[in-house]
Amino acid sequence: MSKAKITRDRIIQQAASIFNQHGYAGTSMSDIMRVTGLQKGGIYNHFRSKDELAIAAFDYAVGCVRQHYADVLRSKRHAVARLYALVDAFYGNFYGTIEALPVKGGCPLLNTAIESDDTHPALRDRARQAMNAWREMIRKIITSGIKRGEVKAEVKADTVATLWISMLEGGLMMSQLYGDRIHLDRVKHHLRQYIRKELAQGT
Amino acid sequence: MSKAKITRDRIIQQAASIFNQHGYAGTSMSDIMRVTGLQKGGIYNHFRSKDELAIAAFDYAVGCVRQHYADVLRSKRHAVARLYALVDAFYGNFYGTIEALPVKGGCPLLNTAIESDDTHPALRDRARQAMNAWREMIRKIITSGIKRGEVKAEVKADTVATLWISMLEGGLMMSQLYGDRIHLDRVKHHLRQYIRKELAQGT
Repeated sequence: MSKAKITRDRIIQQAASIFNQHGYAGTSMSDIMRVTGLQKGGIYNHFRSKDELAIAAFDYAVGCVRQHYADVLRSKRHAVARLYALVDAFYGNFYGTIEALPVKGGCPLLNTAIESDDTHPALRDRARQAMNAWREMIRKIITSGIKRGEVKAEVKADTVATLWISMLEGGLMMSQLYGDRIHLDRVKHHLRQYIRKELAQGT
Repeated sequence: MSKAKITRDRIIQQAASIFNQHGYAGTSMSDIMRVTGLQKGGIYNHFRSKDELAIAAFDYAVGCVRQHYADVLRSKRHAVARLYALVDAFYGNFYGTIEALPVKGGCPLLNTAIESDDTHPALRDRARQAMNAWREMIRKIITSGIKRGEVKAEVKADTVATLWISMLEGGLMMSQLYGDRIHLDRVKHHLRQYIRKELAQGT
């Protein structure tokens, strides 16, 4: 890897936590200079604008989350086991024994969705793509689970994806607001029951 | 009402939509000057700082939401009817036939919770108070419903409040990200089923 690529990646990684904690509008170039230890020119050598860096940082943060999901799903074949694993992986991203997410400040998708919906079309489009990918992951597990007789045939995959993501992101918002994991704990417990009662075939 | 009070209230109302759409960090004094048509001095006559105005604007926005809930609950006595009304009122705040909320940009509590959790203790405390009040409203309806035999005795009021708020706020986040009410529609439908199946006594 070239030295330029190494520096570029380091800027992205360091900027990702600042953007995720302070938001796009709340992060200045001086903040980024401070965390990277670089001068403004050193940053602009790699990124044309704060926008370009913000988008790269968002892609990096979402990539970390996605990698974590891929890791936990790798050893699971049964749709129901995969659904349980996804709930636990989301929880583990923020309150795991080993903190899985190297980006501070909560869920980058939630933070970016809320900040960008009224103000920043480029980031909003990125957040939509990440949301599409997450919904698609849940839908695929459910539809292939239905085909294999592991998930009840009448389950509506897209509706479940909406309820599921709403609950996890909403529960995380509450836990982060209070600095108390109890809200996401309750959501996790409820979703595990929901998988057992409403989704799993033969129960 | 004094002329000063009228001007102060007008600044708060006009600033509330800008803060709610663009966030605290994303709103500048120039933005506030633009929407109010006042000079900086004219605004500082009424508020010592952007902070003081932001907090007053948040309180105003949350007060509008609260007023809407109080209005829809006034005619309902049965706990189950009150719970249905709360779900519909949340939905109606954003996608009602008559838009109930005079503040643009979605739910002020959700937006402020997300923005302030890592960065702005005064706003975060305000968001916590508003969240406490919302949880308390749901808890009270449930506990008095249990006492009157309208809600199942085994229902855990605080857990229901968490699940309920998570789902509504998460569903709103998804609908606002896509500009498509379908996600909050699904949440509303699910919560109405949940009230009927899990909360209402005698079903």
